[in-house]
Amino acid sequence: MVSKGLLVVVSGPSGAGKGTICKELLKNNSQIKVSISATTRLPRTGEEDGVNYFFINRDKFENMIDGDDFLEYAMVYDNYYGTPKEYVMNNLENGNDVLLEIDIVGALQIKERFEDAVFIFILPPSLEELKNRIIGRGTETLSDIDKRYGSAISEIKQVIKYDYAVVNDDVSRAVKDIEAIIRAEKSRVLRNYEKILSKF
Amino acid sequence: MVSKGLLVVVSGPSGAGKGTICKELLKNNSQIKVSISATTRLPRTGEEDGVNYFFINRDKFENMIDGDDFLEYAMVYDNYYGTPKEYVMNNLENGNDVLLEIDIVGALQIKERFEDAVFIFILPPSLEELKNRIIGRGTETLSDIDKRYGSAISEIKQVIKYDYAVVNDDVSRAVKDIEAIIRAEKSRVLRNYEKILSKF
Repeated sequence: MVSKGLLVVVSGPSGAGKGTICKELLKNNSQIKVSISATTRLPRTGEEDGVNYFFINRDKFENMIDGDDFLEYAMVYDNYYGTPKEYVMNNLENGNDVLLEIDIVGALQIKERFEDAVFIFILPPSLEELKNRIIGRGTETLSDIDKRYGSAISEIKQVIKYDYAVVNDDVSRAVKDIEAIIRAEKSRVLRNYEKILSKF
Repeated sequence: MVSKGLLVVVSGPSGAGKGTICKELLKNNSQIKVSISATTRLPRTGEEDGVNYFFINRDKFENMIDGDDFLEYAMVYDNYYGTPKEYVMNNLENGNDVLLEIDIVGALQIKERFEDAVFIFILPPSLEELKNRIIGRGTETLSDIDKRYGSAISEIKQVIKYDYAVVNDDVSRAVKDIEAIIRAEKSRVLRNYEKILSKF
């Protein structure tokens, strides 16, 4: 009953595990298209250009800002992150669902432009587990870890601006929660009202 | 993350097939408690007291109205229908989900009292199919059929007051939609905000 695709924004603090959840979600749902962000930060070990991010330099990024080519962008920890607009818009117009895995600053920018997107906040199981995960990632300096942990706690207060909160204590359960959210959202009256009225 | 149970109201016009869908839903979800309505109408063939309805006489029904024992009640086609209050409230307090399968008049009364209930509207696949189902039921007079069909069409306009609309063109798909809706609603931030804040 839905003609246009659903924009699904998955967000949350560093260390909540949104990356793992999104990877698992996409594995089981080939109909969901993933938006790949652009960033000026350097790749972490194992990250690939065009898979995890489009790794581009600062000049290119700023040219794209000037060309209004981003749906949202932000400077986080001295690096730019942004969502290229074209891919997302084309897929939504064609009726595909699009998944955006972005930080909270970016998500709240999206919310201003797409009031009918679905906003899902990934919560860590506990504060202790959050800290363990940030440390365990092993790619940050001690000062970065403290910065990320401190801001994670204040970021969690932003959950009130989201539609759904999913606790990442069990990845496969969290993925099933998100699958249910996507399915349920497609049945929302507000997304289908015109179609229903035209039929009856 | 949810402490109290979810009140799930499944409603829709006569002939949309809400009874079939609810029966199938309950078969696969033993954790959902079903509220059994009371009515003063006579049982249809195959209907059992205490299973489909509590079949009670008009005096008893009016005594319960006087005692404020109904969550909602209405007079429809010269018969009373109502939802006994005690069973629903006890189960919600104990954290069980409760399913109410009721007509639109009753659902809108519930909406005034329970703003955090979930309202699901069952739509027939088409107007033709709706008429066929009302006729096919074979328990109504011709005048009843016309009355039901006419009011079904105007009832469908009430869908805007519901949260979700599920088309009953395939019972097992419709049941899966409702299961997803229930699961998704349990992840709603507004249902979990206090718990999240107390944890972080």
